[in-house]
Amino acid sequence: MKDNLLLSPGPTKVPREVYDSLGSPIIHHRTPQFQNYLKEAMEGLKEIFQTKNDVFIMASSGTGAMEAAVCNLLSPGDKAITVEGGKFGERWTELCKAYQVEASVIQVTWGTAVQPQQIKEILDADKDIKAVFVTLCETSTGVKTDIQAIGEIVKQTNAVLVVDAVSGLGVDDLQADNWHVDIVCSASHKGLMLPPGLGFISVSPKAFGLIEQSKNPKYYFDLKKAKKTADKTDTPFTPAIALVIALTKSLEIIKKRGLENSFNHFAKLAQAARESAEALGLTLFTDPSCRSNAVTAINVPEGIDGGKFVKTMRDTYGVTMAGGQASLKGKIFRIAHMGCINEQDLIAGISCIETVLKEMGYDFEADKGVKAAQVALQV
Amino acid sequence: MKDNLLLSPGPTKVPREVYDSLGSPIIHHRTPQFQNYLKEAMEGLKEIFQTKNDVFIMASSGTGAMEAAVCNLLSPGDKAITVEGGKFGERWTELCKAYQVEASVIQVTWGTAVQPQQIKEILDADKDIKAVFVTLCETSTGVKTDIQAIGEIVKQTNAVLVVDAVSGLGVDDLQADNWHVDIVCSASHKGLMLPPGLGFISVSPKAFGLIEQSKNPKYYFDLKKAKKTADKTDTPFTPAIALVIALTKSLEIIKKRGLENSFNHFAKLAQAARESAEALGLTLFTDPSCRSNAVTAINVPEGIDGGKFVKTMRDTYGVTMAGGQASLKGKIFRIAHMGCINEQDLIAGISCIETVLKEMGYDFEADKGVKAAQVALQV
Repeated sequence: MKDNLLLSPGPTKVPREVYDSLGSPIIHHRTPQFQNYLKEAMEGLKEIFQTKNDVFIMASSGTGAMEAAVCNLLSPGDKAITVEGGKFGERWTELCKAYQVEASVIQVTWGTAVQPQQIKEILDADKDIKAVFVTLCETSTGVKTDIQAIGEIVKQTNAVLVVDAVSGLGVDDLQADNWHVDIVCSASHKGLMLPPGLGFISVSPKAFGLIEQSKNPKYYFDLKKAKKTADKTDTPFTPAIALVIALTKSLEIIKKRGLENSFNHFAKLAQAARESAEALGLTLFTDPSCRSNAVTAINVPEGIDGGKFVKTMRDTYGVTMAGGQASLKGKIFRIAHMGCINEQDLIAGISCIETVLKEMGYDFEADKGVKAAQVALQV
Repeated sequence: MKDNLLLSPGPTKVPREVYDSLGSPIIHHRTPQFQNYLKEAMEGLKEIFQTKNDVFIMASSGTGAMEAAVCNLLSPGDKAITVEGGKFGERWTELCKAYQVEASVIQVTWGTAVQPQQIKEILDADKDIKAVFVTLCETSTGVKTDIQAIGEIVKQTNAVLVVDAVSGLGVDDLQADNWHVDIVCSASHKGLMLPPGLGFISVSPKAFGLIEQSKNPKYYFDLKKAKKTADKTDTPFTPAIALVIALTKSLEIIKKRGLENSFNHFAKLAQAARESAEALGLTLFTDPSCRSNAVTAINVPEGIDGGKFVKTMRDTYGVTMAGGQASLKGKIFRIAHMGCINEQDLIAGISCIETVLKEMGYDFEADKGVKAAQVALQV
């Protein structure tokens, strides 16, 4: 019987306890009962974000949180830096364009990461730059950005550092405060093991300084309003109550495992995915210097139809991985290691890759992938 | 044992089948499997909106859909009409202000409705007005606006008519196409019986004409992007998957009952609520000429602390009604008739009102409220 194994980099698998929590009877949001959940959720998020700053919860996808960063920080004519090394880096540029922010765009070959030095050079040359927008894990390519090094550079300037951590949060280490990250954007449906529908954003005092000067219009995503209501354990607009309550459950699960253990767990899964791909004679898309542990991007071997490959895994075998996006369509496929994906899920996924590659006539030594994963995972 | 009976005007009770559907395993959104749900949801919403126009689904609260209307239709310096007869009418003015739209604000005594003639006079005097923003059911006061009459007026002009139907949709009749409404905004957590987290917006061709000219910034709420992706049964950003799947279930339930039967059902509940309040010697806040069937606003009797009254019902007896907002704080309380609230729920609510009024020393003839409701409901 075909099951539905989600190994896509968002949405990710949702634990049973979180589903159960989603089905709890809805309570009204302007009550002490809901405030208890909201407080627990906001406090728990701070631990995952590794920050003392407020983390605001929005009813939106991760893109909503990203838009909140741009429209709250900047004014038309302001200058910023964006890094385009994939689809989500491009989103920062698009958002800047929508809000008439002049973006200095650093073009990066897909599959490689920006060099922090490139950001330093632009900041040194133009003291008017107000914000640097980067991506922790570029889901479209599997690249991890060196946020710590960029944080060291940006903190010396008046600019704020904004990190899209929609993917990667809770998987790749991101120390918001220690690394001087002013704004971190994230969402519910990746490392946090919830269905999509919540956006999260942490905001530093330095960022609030800039927010005071912003002239761009905003209402639903107004961070000053978010701050004012959060101070009273409230939200400016009706929150996505069921998802917030379920969030407290997923935060509890993550807390029980511990952040450090999570990072180690996903590092092991990612390593196993890489080794098993190579054992099958496949090559990895992402440069070895900057591989995220949240998603492994694998090149589709020559002669195999990448679209059909992913579709067959999903529709015939019930295993959902992601194909490539934009220019990578049909050329790569991607396996996630996030949230509650575990060793057995990964091995089932690798086994499915083997099955479908075999069906499609790819020539390789059977079971080598699964064996490599078993060795790497020590299962 | 204290239960949790939600009689507040949003969020409202969620049917068991919808909860079950919320807990279905998450599937990826860019798959034919999810497209089936999305298509069903978009088609089902058209029936409730009584429109042939597209209805777009957003991961947001209802305010997100309202912001989408303002930022997509208008440019800085454009003129519009808003009606302030309650908290949600004020929201249209605030949104206009945020986007530098000059709003001619019609002030209306809370508890009464705007006269369509007032809108006609402003439109006649100023041909540059591009949009008229009104509220179907003003949840803060229980007032229903005469959308049909306003539609007849606005259709003669170049302006578009935008209706906030976050409350009231599926309860008070709103014939978007027959009544010439260009944009209807709504949300998941009132008449549609879902937890909050989805915003809906229908857009007419006349509205799309104006959208083409708009210069205000937008990204997450960009309706051109929504249209482009909806045409391919997709969403511009990750949708709130679990809520969309659950929406198909609630639409199925509403379809089974039929819209006409729903309107009749809620009219009966509202009438029963009004009669039982009066039987208890209480007075109704809302002018009799414009009472919505979605929510009944009742004046807190002299000598009773309105805040404590609502709090006691909720915390001691597990019955959640809403108090008054803004200037009505402590002065009124509100009972909803929406979604899956039925005769038994209403009677339980009235009984709880009696119990707490008695406890608080209000002098009335015991059980008269429940009896009046029973008669009105013929139960």
